[in-house]
Amino acid sequence: MACRVPLVLLACGSFNPITYQHMRLFELARDHMHQSGQFQVVGGIVSPVSDVYGKQGLAPARHRVAMARLALRSSDWVRVDDWESEQADWTETVVTMRHHYDRILKEHQNTTGAPQLKLLCGADFLDTFQVPGLWRADHVAEVTGRFGLVCVSRGGLLPHRAVHESDTLSRHGNNIFLVRDWISNEISATEVRRALRRGLSVKYLLPDPVIDYIRERGLYTWESEQRNRGAALRPLAQQGAPPETPAD
Amino acid sequence: MACRVPLVLLACGSFNPITYQHMRLFELARDHMHQSGQFQVVGGIVSPVSDVYGKQGLAPARHRVAMARLALRSSDWVRVDDWESEQADWTETVVTMRHHYDRILKEHQNTTGAPQLKLLCGADFLDTFQVPGLWRADHVAEVTGRFGLVCVSRGGLLPHRAVHESDTLSRHGNNIFLVRDWISNEISATEVRRALRRGLSVKYLLPDPVIDYIRERGLYTWESEQRNRGAALRPLAQQGAPPETPAD
Amino acid sequence: MACRVPLVLLACGSFNPITYQHMRLFELARDHMHQSGQFQVVGGIVSPVSDVYGKQGLAPARHRVAMARLALRSSDWVRVDDWESEQADWTETVVTMRHHYDRILKEHQNTTGAPQLKLLCGADFLDTFQVPGLWRADHVAEVTGRFGLVCVSRGGLLPHRAVHESDTLSRHGNNIFLVRDWISNEISATEVRRALRRGLSVKYLLPDPVIDYIRERGLYTWESEQRNRGAALRPLAQQGAPPETPAD
Amino acid sequence: MACRVPLVLLACGSFNPITYQHMRLFELARDHMHQSGQFQVVGGIVSPVSDVYGKQGLAPARHRVAMARLALRSSDWVRVDDWESEQADWTETVVTMRHHYDRILKEHQNTTGAPQLKLLCGADFLDTFQVPGLWRADHVAEVTGRFGLVCVSRGGLLPHRAVHESDTLSRHGNNIFLVRDWISNEISATEVRRALRRGLSVKYLLPDPVIDYIRERGLYTWESEQRNRGAALRPLAQQGAPPETPAD
Amino acid sequence: MACRVPLVLLACGSFNPITYQHMRLFELARDHMHQSGQFQVVGGIVSPVSDVYGKQGLAPARHRVAMARLALRSSDWVRVDDWESEQADWTETVVTMRHHYDRILKEHQNTTGAPQLKLLCGADFLDTFQVPGLWRADHVAEVTGRFGLVCVSRGGLLPHRAVHESDTLSRHGNNIFLVRDWISNEISATEVRRALRRGLSVKYLLPDPVIDYIRERGLYTWESEQRNRGAALRPLAQQGAPPETPAD
Amino acid sequence: MACRVPLVLLACGSFNPITYQHMRLFELARDHMHQSGQFQVVGGIVSPVSDVYGKQGLAPARHRVAMARLALRSSDWVRVDDWESEQADWTETVVTMRHHYDRILKEHQNTTGAPQLKLLCGADFLDTFQVPGLWRADHVAEVTGRFGLVCVSRGGLLPHRAVHESDTLSRHGNNIFLVRDWISNEISATEVRRALRRGLSVKYLLPDPVIDYIRERGLYTWESEQRNRGAALRPLAQQGAPPETPAD
Repeated sequence: MACRVPLVLLACGSFNPITYQHMRLFELARDHMHQSGQFQVVGGIVSPVSDVYGKQGLAPARHRVAMARLALRSSDWVRVDDWESEQADWTETVVTMRHHYDRILKEHQNTTGAPQLKLLCGADFLDTFQVPGLWRADHVAEVTGRFGLVCVSRGGLLPHRAVHESDTLSRHGNNIFLVRDWISNEISATEVRRALRRGLSVKYLLPDPVIDYIRERGLYTWESEQRNRGAALRPLAQQGAPPETPAD
Repeated sequence: MACRVPLVLLACGSFNPITYQHMRLFELARDHMHQSGQFQVVGGIVSPVSDVYGKQGLAPARHRVAMARLALRSSDWVRVDDWESEQADWTETVVTMRHHYDRILKEHQNTTGAPQLKLLCGADFLDTFQVPGLWRADHVAEVTGRFGLVCVSRGGLLPHRAVHESDTLSRHGNNIFLVRDWISNEISATEVRRALRRGLSVKYLLPDPVIDYIRERGLYTWESEQRNRGAALRPLAQQGAPPETPAD
Repeated sequence: MACRVPLVLLACGSFNPITYQHMRLFELARDHMHQSGQFQVVGGIVSPVSDVYGKQGLAPARHRVAMARLALRSSDWVRVDDWESEQADWTETVVTMRHHYDRILKEHQNTTGAPQLKLLCGADFLDTFQVPGLWRADHVAEVTGRFGLVCVSRGGLLPHRAVHESDTLSRHGNNIFLVRDWISNEISATEVRRALRRGLSVKYLLPDPVIDYIRERGLYTWESEQRNRGAALRPLAQQGAPPETPAD
Repeated sequence: MACRVPLVLLACGSFNPITYQHMRLFELARDHMHQSGQFQVVGGIVSPVSDVYGKQGLAPARHRVAMARLALRSSDWVRVDDWESEQADWTETVVTMRHHYDRILKEHQNTTGAPQLKLLCGADFLDTFQVPGLWRADHVAEVTGRFGLVCVSRGGLLPHRAVHESDTLSRHGNNIFLVRDWISNEISATEVRRALRRGLSVKYLLPDPVIDYIRERGLYTWESEQRNRGAALRPLAQQGAPPETPAD
Repeated sequence: MACRVPLVLLACGSFNPITYQHMRLFELARDHMHQSGQFQVVGGIVSPVSDVYGKQGLAPARHRVAMARLALRSSDWVRVDDWESEQADWTETVVTMRHHYDRILKEHQNTTGAPQLKLLCGADFLDTFQVPGLWRADHVAEVTGRFGLVCVSRGGLLPHRAVHESDTLSRHGNNIFLVRDWISNEISATEVRRALRRGLSVKYLLPDPVIDYIRERGLYTWESEQRNRGAALRPLAQQGAPPETPAD
Repeated sequence: MACRVPLVLLACGSFNPITYQHMRLFELARDHMHQSGQFQVVGGIVSPVSDVYGKQGLAPARHRVAMARLALRSSDWVRVDDWESEQADWTETVVTMRHHYDRILKEHQNTTGAPQLKLLCGADFLDTFQVPGLWRADHVAEVTGRFGLVCVSRGGLLPHRAVHESDTLSRHGNNIFLVRDWISNEISATEVRRALRRGLSVKYLLPDPVIDYIRERGLYTWESEQRNRGAALRPLAQQGAPPETPAD
């Protein structure tokens, strides 16, 4: 075990609201990295996007951060970080990764063996690299080459194909970990919001304290879903950054 | 609202162990019956099968009942009933329904408007009616005609087709309610047991108290999975009863 | 039976030419509404679109009306109405519905229990509601809320999904009746015209008198198919109305 | 045109009852053979199987013959022949073909150019050749080599593959004509009987006179569907003959 | 045999580089035309496109011609022709066909029975006829009517459907030969170039002498793949010609 | 590079006859193992099964060995070994592996770093482990645990699922290498034999010298295909061994 590389997993996204599926991603990724025999996962970070992101129906960041904290109370290794959510503008994924890696390095500056940091994402994320003009080539190289990806998918072969068809991604193929989730559990936050504004039950899709938080503050209604409606996502106006983050 | 028919939903099955998916079935069914405008769901019953059932890897009934009770602690309308699990032999579905309906009638004997009782099941259940020699014709008629079914499914059209292709089921078509689950959440108990005996995480697939219960008692191991291995299911030796109950 | 709601079904479309499939829709819809136990279908109306509609290969309205009348001679409950086909401009679906409902109300003004009027359509029709800018929100509400839809489909789950994903449609979900056609019979009028202009047999796809009518007048030829070719459909230039009516 | 080979098409099957789809097969096959430029179709024969065939729910032959005659009244080239239906035992396909070909030869004995006779069948028919022990090798050779097949299919590639994978069929590949039906029209007689015994409409699936005939004689009921139930098909007890004839 | 029509097959394309799949097309087409009993294939021509074609990563024509010649050294009936590859501009398919047919006619001017010339293509080729504005109607008529097509496909029904849906193609249906390749062998030249520039093995996908030729001249690299990147294909700027030729 | 583990790949099978696809498996596997950064492939062995295997149409071993040698003449790292083909009885895979590993160990007894030996197989091979009673549990453990598998697949997810669903295979998951073949090249030997006995071209599916060898000796005919027809495969009469070896 001593020779395993310590690793921190970072998930960026809306978390609007956080669901059991978001939290499963961390569990699946950790099991997979341990089974590879090469890594020891020492922490996980949930980083909700800031309000400037401009996604339809996006609840205020302070609520999304609060809900994620309630949901992860029972986890002893994943924590919520509000740095990205408090930035004045939308933050490129690579910038968020640099910020967290700097912190990790500082925390370990007097020790040997600072952990690596890898981006935890869903299967769709790899496709964003293919969208012309969306990512700066040096950012892709930094995210996949310097840091690395852990990508969880179900069903099809999309992630394998996405890596195969990109010269850049396949060059860093040994730093992209494709995790298969055999237990279907696709609780899209879009469907959760839809059920909430129609007054339908979302119990057992997200933890009870989060449901209470939403109900008490009346977070997801027909009106809140109109927020940012038709507006362009912030990254689409800013070349070199992914418009989609792994979580909804 | 006064004119809505009160309704109790009964789910039979192994619950080996109970997962969030089992509990979602109740939420989805209740929402659907309310949206129809005709029913008011007043209660739900989880009825774990007895140990004689003979399914591979079946944990002792007292544990399965205890886990279901832990899991449903947060529900204010679904409860666990151990009557079926304590029977000396395997109980036919229709007999379990009669037992619970008798209790309901007794509880309401001095009132008007005793609730109806319907069987809550998954999509595969309807197919068991088609297996030759498995069900007694009068039992099918009693389950679908006297009581009624609420059947939750995902994806394909199997339940609609099963009803269409059976003269008996389509005769009682107005008493068979097909609920669509748009949020994929297929947490099979088989996969959960597989993860448990391989030492992988099942967090967020079932409630934490249930996971603790399993871990403390070492319930699902490679050895326990050998239990009943290759043995015939009890109902297969007893004509006129479904071998599959809605939950795993 | 006395308590069943009387109902008239209205189908709008090109009927270019009418086929057995168009006529099956009425039979399937009537059986379904009767089986629900809530309605008594008392009439059906075929309403061919006017020539201004601008669809490629559209035969003159007087021929389409005549063919539909020949085809429905053997029906004792469906009739052809030429009001819409004679309008100087294209008529929005909701306006056609209002016209026919006014007539129904007048015919029953001295009686109790005027029939309801519902739109009979194919599975593709529901999708037109999703096209941005095509329908006025109040028209959707009036068609689905005040009148109601009977939608016949085959194969997939498109209509259920279309209702689920629209807040408006699911609000009126109890007024949208989804009928499944288990007997495949997709006689597209496009294929019928293709066979006709290539001199191939269309016998048994539409009634013999209609085939005779087409042959005698030379209705569907290579030249007639060029009519309106490349022209924009009338509704596309007129916000707030569906460009597609249920029949081809 | 003088050099075209005259051709008669023979369809064997239950015709229980005859539907528009059975009649479409003849139209499609004729168009296809004409388009090939090599044949002139001069006649079609519908040959209902005898009652000994033993298929579940098979109506008496005299009714099936009468219905087919009513349905084909409007055809000027397809006729019903009751020879096969009156045989005391089930007749192998090749024997029926020999019978009709002998008659054709006799009718043309003083002329030159007696027509060829080919078997008209659906896509499933080719598969029966693959069932081990079902067909005698010399019968397959006679049906495909001496006579020939016209096989109408929809959707998949089953018939092409069946020919490719059989050495015998591909040897006679130039005598097997695969016709594609681009207009979906799969009116299975099984579904028609199902609708009839449930009291649902079958109008526009078969001609009105046939529906009247069925209604007047009460042909397809729940009781009639029990006929031959569970009995083995006659051909399965008699090696060397197809158990499935092209029509239901 | 004497009455068989002699036939030459012409394949146009990039051949960038030539693979075993390109060469299989000729073998499959020849077998099919022989099995039809109507043709005797007497020759095959591989005609690489000129450099002006402008496709991404297109190697210089002299190399593509040389590789095709090396690959076809072992064939006794297919030869490479560099006329098209040496034209100053891109040559429309119909013009290349006229050129080769003129040569054939000249070679046979003192004999009877000059061979026919048909275009050999893959399944995608037929689809190019559907792209609006791409082909001049008289060119389609000349390619399919005067010359003819031999189209090799795998899997689906695309070529049959493409012929069915086009009035022009189905008019010349008897001159369009659809060949089925039952042995999957889809060696796309795109994948071959991808493997080459990543240093992966392409042995057994193309003949060894071609691989040696490529390696010695360093033909397919990351740099060469940038050639023509983002440029419009020549035919797209020149109405009336197919942008895609059968080979990659 | 010094720290890479040297590796020999062993493929067992009929090789009846050897095709380009068999040889591609070696190339793909070698590239994959090199890309992993952990192995250096130093050799490959083709081991044709003995004649006792009893597969339909199996040509004599001396011919299958001779053809494989002709085909691999151009390879500088894969060789044919006839030890298995000369055994008097059918040899279990694990026994063949032990034999070759003993030889490897002997050859390297005075050196450090004898190569590992892994079985090279196609995607179907993993499924044979699931067939009840086919493999002895200790053999599976030895093949996957002591030696290891390199499994090449196309399309679906069968191999991943086969590993996931077996407790034994997933325990040795780090010793099972799943290689994806992105270039479809499924040249089944069954189809090659079919083409040969029908006199169709197989050029470019296997090397010319092999085709010459087959033609000169008249190897694959309708008669030779009858050999072993209907006979049981040897392994099926001998518990504890796979009936299917990776190559046809």
